Amino acid sequence: MSITDDALGANRSYSAQFNLGSLAMPPAKKLAVLACMDARLDVELVLGLKPGEAHIIRNAGGIATEDTLRSLIISHHLLGTQEFMVINHTDCGMLTFKDHDLAARLKKQTGVVPVAPAVFHSFTNLEDNVREQVGKLRAHPWIPREIPVRGFIYDVKTGRLSEVAMEQAKGHGGA
Amino acid sequence: MSITDDALGANRSYSAQFNLGSLAMPPAKKLAVLACMDARLDVELVLGLKPGEAHIIRNAGGIATEDTLRSLIISHHLLGTQEFMVINHTDCGMLTFKDHDLAARLKKQTGVVPVAPAVFHSFTNLEDNVREQVGKLRAHPWIPREIPVRGFIYDVKTGRLSEVAMEQAKGHGGA
Repeated sequence: MSITDDALGANRSYSAQFNLGSLAMPPAKKLAVLACMDARLDVELVLGLKPGEAHIIRNAGGIATEDTLRSLIISHHLLGTQEFMVINHTDCGMLTFKDHDLAARLKKQTGVVPVAPAVFHSFTNLEDNVREQVGKLRAHPWIPREIPVRGFIYDVKTGRLSEVAMEQAKGHGGA
Repeated sequence: MSITDDALGANRSYSAQFNLGSLAMPPAKKLAVLACMDARLDVELVLGLKPGEAHIIRNAGGIATEDTLRSLIISHHLLGTQEFMVINHTDCGMLTFKDHDLAARLKKQTGVVPVAPAVFHSFTNLEDNVREQVGKLRAHPWIPREIPVRGFIYDVKTGRLSEVAMEQAKGHGGA
C-alpha cells in the first residue's frame, strides 16, 4: 500500500466522524499564517487553531514570495483576515544548502535548467530571514498598513514560538 | 487582546506539554501535500498525519505555481519525499471571483498596480483545476517520473476526499 493510500484510509476514518459541515468560508478568527512546510511544524496544533479559524499558507522556508503575497491579498480582501503571522523555525532545511549548489546538482542530474523555479530562497540567518519576509509583506501596496504583520521563530526542540519582528497596526506604536 | 496574542497564548500551552523535540527533519512518511489555504481544511487532521510525517505546502486554491514547484523540488531532492498529493476543495473562494475584477478593485482602492502578483489563479471548474495542477507538477523536468502525483477534492460538507487525477509512478500503469 502506498503512503497516499494510507492517508486516504485515515481520511475515511476522519470523514466517518465528521461534524464540521456547517463551517463558513471566511476564517472565524480573521487570521492568516505564513509558515514553513516543515513536517515538524503542525501550524494548527502549534497555535491552537481549530478547523474554520485561520488561513494557513506554507512553502519551503516560510518565504514571502509572489505566490504567498497572492494568497495573503486574497485572504484579506476577499475573505476578511485582519492579522498576519509569519513563522520560520529552527533546524530549517533552507539553512543547509546554497541555491546555486542545488541548481547545479539538478542540472547535472536532469540535463536541463527550466525557466522556473528561478530561485530556491535558501538562507543563512534565521532571524534576518523572518524580518525580511515580514518587511516584504509590510511593503506591499495591496496589504493595508492597518494589518499587523508579526514574525516568529518556532523552536522544533521546545515547541515554543519567539517573536523576532513586529510591524504593528498604524496608531499602535509599531514601525 | 489581538488574535495573534491569543494564538501565542495557545502556543504557551502547547509548548508546556511538548514532547516531540527529537523528530527528524526529513518527513517520516516521505509524503508532500499541496493544498488550499482554506481554513476548513486542516490537512494534517484530514489525512491523519502526525507532526514529523509530511511536508505541507498551501496557497490560495492549491495551485501549482513557481513557488509550490520550488517547495516540492526541495521536498523531494533534499528531504526525500516520494509521493505528492494535490488537494483542492468544494466551496473554494477561488470559484467566487475573476482575476481581472479583483485586480481592478485593488487598483481602484489603492491607486497602484504592483508588478507582483501578476495573476490570482481564480478558476471556474474544480475538477479541471485539480487535473491542471497535477499536470503541471508531472510535467516539470525536476520532478522525477517515479513520483506518483495524485489529485483530490475535499468535500467541506462531508470531510471526504475524492480522487480526480492520478499520475502514477512509471511501470505502475499510470499516465
